[in-house]
Amino acid sequence: MEIRCVLKTTILIHCQDQAGIIFAVTEFLYSKGGNIIYLDQHVDHEANVFFMRVECHFTNSEPQIEVLKYEFQRTIADARHMKWQWFTDHEKPRMALFVSKYHHCLYDILSRYQSGELRVEIPFIISNHETLEPIAQQFNIPFYHIPVTKTNKAKAEAAQLRLLKEHQIDFLVLARYMQIISNTLISQYENKIINIHHSFLPAFAGAKPYHAAFERGVKIIGATSHYVTEELDAGPIIVQDVTPVLHSHAIKDFITKGRDLEKIVLSRGLQLHVQHKVMVYNNKTVIFS
Amino acid sequence: MEIRCVLKTTILIHCQDQAGIIFAVTEFLYSKGGNIIYLDQHVDHEANVFFMRVECHFTNSEPQIEVLKYEFQRTIADARHMKWQWFTDHEKPRMALFVSKYHHCLYDILSRYQSGELRVEIPFIISNHETLEPIAQQFNIPFYHIPVTKTNKAKAEAAQLRLLKEHQIDFLVLARYMQIISNTLISQYENKIINIHHSFLPAFAGAKPYHAAFERGVKIIGATSHYVTEELDAGPIIVQDVTPVLHSHAIKDFITKGRDLEKIVLSRGLQLHVQHKVMVYNNKTVIFS
Amino acid sequence: MEIRCVLKTTILIHCQDQAGIIFAVTEFLYSKGGNIIYLDQHVDHEANVFFMRVECHFTNSEPQIEVLKYEFQRTIADARHMKWQWFTDHEKPRMALFVSKYHHCLYDILSRYQSGELRVEIPFIISNHETLEPIAQQFNIPFYHIPVTKTNKAKAEAAQLRLLKEHQIDFLVLARYMQIISNTLISQYENKIINIHHSFLPAFAGAKPYHAAFERGVKIIGATSHYVTEELDAGPIIVQDVTPVLHSHAIKDFITKGRDLEKIVLSRGLQLHVQHKVMVYNNKTVIFS
Amino acid sequence: MEIRCVLKTTILIHCQDQAGIIFAVTEFLYSKGGNIIYLDQHVDHEANVFFMRVECHFTNSEPQIEVLKYEFQRTIADARHMKWQWFTDHEKPRMALFVSKYHHCLYDILSRYQSGELRVEIPFIISNHETLEPIAQQFNIPFYHIPVTKTNKAKAEAAQLRLLKEHQIDFLVLARYMQIISNTLISQYENKIINIHHSFLPAFAGAKPYHAAFERGVKIIGATSHYVTEELDAGPIIVQDVTPVLHSHAIKDFITKGRDLEKIVLSRGLQLHVQHKVMVYNNKTVIFS
Repeated sequence: MEIRCVLKTTILIHCQDQAGIIFAVTEFLYSKGGNIIYLDQHVDHEANVFFMRVECHFTNSEPQIEVLKYEFQRTIADARHMKWQWFTDHEKPRMALFVSKYHHCLYDILSRYQSGELRVEIPFIISNHETLEPIAQQFNIPFYHIPVTKTNKAKAEAAQLRLLKEHQIDFLVLARYMQIISNTLISQYENKIINIHHSFLPAFAGAKPYHAAFERGVKIIGATSHYVTEELDAGPIIVQDVTPVLHSHAIKDFITKGRDLEKIVLSRGLQLHVQHKVMVYNNKTVIFS
Repeated sequence: MEIRCVLKTTILIHCQDQAGIIFAVTEFLYSKGGNIIYLDQHVDHEANVFFMRVECHFTNSEPQIEVLKYEFQRTIADARHMKWQWFTDHEKPRMALFVSKYHHCLYDILSRYQSGELRVEIPFIISNHETLEPIAQQFNIPFYHIPVTKTNKAKAEAAQLRLLKEHQIDFLVLARYMQIISNTLISQYENKIINIHHSFLPAFAGAKPYHAAFERGVKIIGATSHYVTEELDAGPIIVQDVTPVLHSHAIKDFITKGRDLEKIVLSRGLQLHVQHKVMVYNNKTVIFS
Repeated sequence: MEIRCVLKTTILIHCQDQAGIIFAVTEFLYSKGGNIIYLDQHVDHEANVFFMRVECHFTNSEPQIEVLKYEFQRTIADARHMKWQWFTDHEKPRMALFVSKYHHCLYDILSRYQSGELRVEIPFIISNHETLEPIAQQFNIPFYHIPVTKTNKAKAEAAQLRLLKEHQIDFLVLARYMQIISNTLISQYENKIINIHHSFLPAFAGAKPYHAAFERGVKIIGATSHYVTEELDAGPIIVQDVTPVLHSHAIKDFITKGRDLEKIVLSRGLQLHVQHKVMVYNNKTVIFS
Repeated sequence: MEIRCVLKTTILIHCQDQAGIIFAVTEFLYSKGGNIIYLDQHVDHEANVFFMRVECHFTNSEPQIEVLKYEFQRTIADARHMKWQWFTDHEKPRMALFVSKYHHCLYDILSRYQSGELRVEIPFIISNHETLEPIAQQFNIPFYHIPVTKTNKAKAEAAQLRLLKEHQIDFLVLARYMQIISNTLISQYENKIINIHHSFLPAFAGAKPYHAAFERGVKIIGATSHYVTEELDAGPIIVQDVTPVLHSHAIKDFITKGRDLEKIVLSRGLQLHVQHKVMVYNNKTVIFS
């Protein structure tokens, strides 16, 4: 009896658009014994950039992933100036959770994590308040209280960064973390910090979006998960969703209805990230299905 | 045999909130033999304003509408400083249609009009272009081509106003009319000019919203019908709706998908207006169901 | 200084439609010094039944709620054969949670409960499996494992009923409880057992709705919260919501996407119930805003 | 100066899933000088069937489409037992419209047709009633009134079939045509008859779905465009969409709201068909983006 172990991999590629890319990549994978489970591509015709996502399985008689990567670079990527990433399914990304005082996104993420629906490691939670520490304890996750004030901001962020490095964090999730992240941190985790903003961006960027939405008299409110960039609430959008509101809804009703939106939109955004279904280009995202 | 003719009426009321209003109004209607078919109310607790919509039927042994109005003013409204309107079902509002070159909203409105679904009179269509004249002819509606240029704007608007007055127009619909309406016209038709804007306001106000939405990389696009006020695209919102978009959609796809949104959102907005289901206060709308 | 304590109350009324009901009720409340915060009514013209929901505040110089109820019955309700309920805001309904093996609805409800968003008492959780006991412990809620088999069904239900009575349970929530409730239990908690069904009812009633939806090739899946009646999945619908699916989604994707729908739709349904915004008539619900 | 004429083509392929298909197809197109504009594929892992849609452009120095087809069959398709279709952009499909008395879908389709948004030929409209003839005249389309009664059904359908053949119709659209199509007709236009059903199928198949939805007390109504098969309302679903309803909506409100859904869902379904974005397998559809 032969036990065959399947190596499940996902490849993300982008490069200048040119004839024959799909042909070249699929020929390479075919020649290595790969079985293409999923392939989707997108061309940004304005920017002339080609994007591709491939899920490819290999059985254990096939070459190791490191060998595949080496050959892919040499025979396919080099000549075409490709940027690419090749992930294997057994790697679990390491995610840091930043929170302040709101609990709904935290509960939602931790319950998905605990149940195994969200395939990541969460080595710790960071907060500028102690409010949510009991929830962290309830789910058995280390909780670091790092207060942030006007005067200690740089020092606080240094402490955060130390934790991130020490725990080899792959990406950050700001689950209603009510502080602005500095460019130092952003530049080290480019397209790796996911935020939830409680409005349908670009409407109502900045503080108190539900109050602004109420003031404007909109009939629909929204939530947006996006990567954090230097400009506030202006990074690449991953997921948006909306829900109707009525004239009879007060601001507190917007906030209540919004909570359900926020937690779902943030969780969908981070799942897409974890499943390597997001590519960022030109401050926009390509979202593979 | 007695033939009983039912007088169907709708009352819109607003005034400062105070105890006993509903009681006073319903007592009045009951005492006049009115049968309340529908009653809904709303209190804006911030502004302390009370809004109410009542549908009330009277049979022909009851007093005439003008007598009812007179007594209502004297016994109910005066003491409470109420503002109110009392409509009867057999009045058909007279509506002017303004268009430019886009046909989709025009077709949608005219087909609802011709089929009897939209209970208005449309005495004419005004356009700054000749493009849509064949559609007006197809539906047998007078079409006035009033070109608008930088230099003739005041004169053009005077011509428009003459037509509006002459035909005793009650309200205007801008069905993708690509010109800014002057304050002269707006002030004469306050909360009586309905526009469709092809974005989810307040995001992407102003020109070329689909281009701006594409540029920003949003995952949902929208449309908004609203009353026109002096500030561009900032008037009271009547209806909003949205539809998802993908990274694979080009601007032309946004435009195509948006057309369906625009026509539905505009038609829903003007139906609410025609059915006296909209009240405006503080640049926001109360929309009765 | 006078401390004024506000008594916040909600009244639900239904009776045969007849002239003057709103007038009579609002006159009564006005005469007792009540301040109407919210009033909405609905007439089922087919069945000729009138429904009304009123939120009314009284200050502490006013009569006690029991006195109000007594007088309301005598002066208003008796003559009109009204059925009515009058709730005060400080009563917290007591809710029993039934679960099996799925955790997502349980997590969602318990996190809302723990954060104070859901204003109920949850004296215990009942399950036919031990799987979710750790979650109950995590949230510090007594957990009763009552296995249900073909042979012990009557006995198991007797044990459930004993717990319900002992803890004076007001209503039940079946948070993906995978057992059919017997008529004995249903008849004692009429319109007081809320279930979540993982389809857009009446499509795909019964077992394995996601499999059936996949098989049929639908483009949208849904979830429905409803009151449990004798006929399976046929009780009065409280809330429904949907989400799009693609040909590329496998059954497991339906299940994953559906989980988010289910938990939101169930929570919205039970919040409406708790806030006394649901009235049931003729196997349908009136949902007040 | 050289004028280059671009041949725009779309290829639909399905066959048993097997390694190397994408590689083989893209190699073929690359070798013929084709420029792949779009490629998407789907594998039904249960049925082990592979589906693919490719948009490919050729310039005029390249081989003719007939030559391409011939070589594709010989070198690619034969060995893999592929079923495929290869369309060129300049072919306009010929579409027959069947209507009865409802005008909304007819107006919507004809306005898209007249404006050029819908790229088809509509040689005629068939109806079992004369009601909509004026609309056909308004849009200058021949209208054939073919009454259908219990006794003349076969004869009526023979007359329809004669018209379809005579005008070389490619596909049929039933725009609220209130007659059941016989198997004779269906078998000649397999997956080429598009119907709109005014419910969220499979809920409320058959007659009077709005009445049934009202009776059941649903909170959301829907519409479904699908291919017609022998079993009533059970064919492959192309597009579905929904809209919320309230307890306050009467059946006539369901019908009014439903009209907007129906026309949009039918138009989207037929646009997908016209753009060769639908593949049918196993009574389900693959819908390419």
